[in-house]
Amino acid sequence: MTDEPLYHVDGTLVPASEATVSVDDRGFRYGDAAFETLRAYGGTVFEWEHHVERLEATCETLSLEHGLSTDALQGRIGETLAANDLADAYVRLSITRGVQPGKLTPQPEVDPTVIVYAKPLSRGGLEGESVWDESATVETVETRKIPDAALPASAKTHNYLNGILARTELSSDVDEAVLFDAANHVAEGTTSNLFFVRDGVLQTPSTDGPVLPGITREVVLELAEEAGVSTREGTYDLEDVLAADEVFLTNRTWELRPVATVDGREIGGGPVTDCLSRLYDERVEERCYG
Amino acid sequence: MTDEPLYHVDGTLVPASEATVSVDDRGFRYGDAAFETLRAYGGTVFEWEHHVERLEATCETLSLEHGLSTDALQGRIGETLAANDLADAYVRLSITRGVQPGKLTPQPEVDPTVIVYAKPLSRGGLEGESVWDESATVETVETRKIPDAALPASAKTHNYLNGILARTELSSDVDEAVLFDAANHVAEGTTSNLFFVRDGVLQTPSTDGPVLPGITREVVLELAEEAGVSTREGTYDLEDVLAADEVFLTNRTWELRPVATVDGREIGGGPVTDCLSRLYDERVEERCYG
Repeated sequence: MTDEPLYHVDGTLVPASEATVSVDDRGFRYGDAAFETLRAYGGTVFEWEHHVERLEATCETLSLEHGLSTDALQGRIGETLAANDLADAYVRLSITRGVQPGKLTPQPEVDPTVIVYAKPLSRGGLEGESVWDESATVETVETRKIPDAALPASAKTHNYLNGILARTELSSDVDEAVLFDAANHVAEGTTSNLFFVRDGVLQTPSTDGPVLPGITREVVLELAEEAGVSTREGTYDLEDVLAADEVFLTNRTWELRPVATVDGREIGGGPVTDCLSRLYDERVEERCYG
Repeated sequence: MTDEPLYHVDGTLVPASEATVSVDDRGFRYGDAAFETLRAYGGTVFEWEHHVERLEATCETLSLEHGLSTDALQGRIGETLAANDLADAYVRLSITRGVQPGKLTPQPEVDPTVIVYAKPLSRGGLEGESVWDESATVETVETRKIPDAALPASAKTHNYLNGILARTELSSDVDEAVLFDAANHVAEGTTSNLFFVRDGVLQTPSTDGPVLPGITREVVLELAEEAGVSTREGTYDLEDVLAADEVFLTNRTWELRPVATVDGREIGGGPVTDCLSRLYDERVEERCYG
């Protein structure tokens, strides 16, 4: 055990306080980088293959050929967990285009900067505890999601100001901002996907809109189908959400988190949210602690 | 003189190769940072007051209270120029929100990270040389500008992937991408504003659209008015640009740069571009070398 966490920076484990990147790194100058937020449960990274797939999709959008194998990336994550003596952890993997000659136009030759962050997070699965204490409060905001034609929502990048501007609009005690797209349809939270249940049908904005194809989102849709819950991915107005019986958010860290209020209106979770949370815990238990 | 440039990082001059930021810096994690590109001519930063004004506007958009005075910022730039023995230089000033506890939501208490980059650039003014060798070739691209409702174009930030995606669309020998807004009106280049002349009227897309209020753009509009050239800021289609008599781009580094071709169609500069370039050089001469 060390006093402070160790990060994996370009192949070397260093104390967090000494983990740096060049100010010429394109990840710093332009946010020219891809990332994934992962969770390790009992030492196993949950849904690793899906994260790799999405990471590669992001890099393809950015024309970023980092040249690292999946095994190499997984190896660095494993080393980071081991060095920090962590089995249950939050992990963030970032790959930047590194330092390049010239200015804005990316060069094909990439010497990427690869960072693995890890921090302890509570045990998951059936015996686990939520990382959140209470249901989420959410507010809708004026900041609109960036359209896919400008920067595809499917790319998970270090360009996060859109979400930051949305968060700065929130009242002080509110947990998450929900953004609309340019046509005023509900898109997603700044770091979460939104689901709602109405008349027993589980619904969530389609990734045809500017919506991140969240991996937890995908798992929840799968679990719902396996459990015989009807699902629908569509285009929704705020009114659809406000009229729902249950609302919850998903992301890698929160897993499923019921929404207590939307713009002050009480909604909350309910039986479908509870059932899917239980099924999610079972999957984590089976895949990671089994 | 040193072998490699010195950058100013958080109050200290360090060799460029040792200039770093923490991987936990929000400027790196999220591109949560403001910047300005400046030019020093004969040791004087051209249009410094306008840069400060725009920097403050960016920081206000980001709710980033960096707490540094204008004099302090100017002092660091002066120190950087002196340490590198530079009078004629490219300067970049970046201010990030620094490292903060918590995750995405910014905290009001900011310990900013301030970086000043400087590199030699040729003398400007009447006796100067352009930093570019030839007129620019430009192509229009599929990537659309981010709408102001998602991230205001007036904010100059480290979220630059929109421009990078645009640049990756270009044919290999092309200098600049021109982006349209969501309504298919001409907006701007990835690092430049676009002007065109038709029937003697100087025209440029209005900043009512997603267009950076470029400082060179502002100077050019001022010079045109002083010279009795009619100006118009409006909403334009590609056809308006293609039918122009002259087209040129502006930015801090290029100053005014004639456009040889748009999507392969020859246009070029001309008498109005030449006249405004001369007036620009005169202003640089008078303000900085006078």
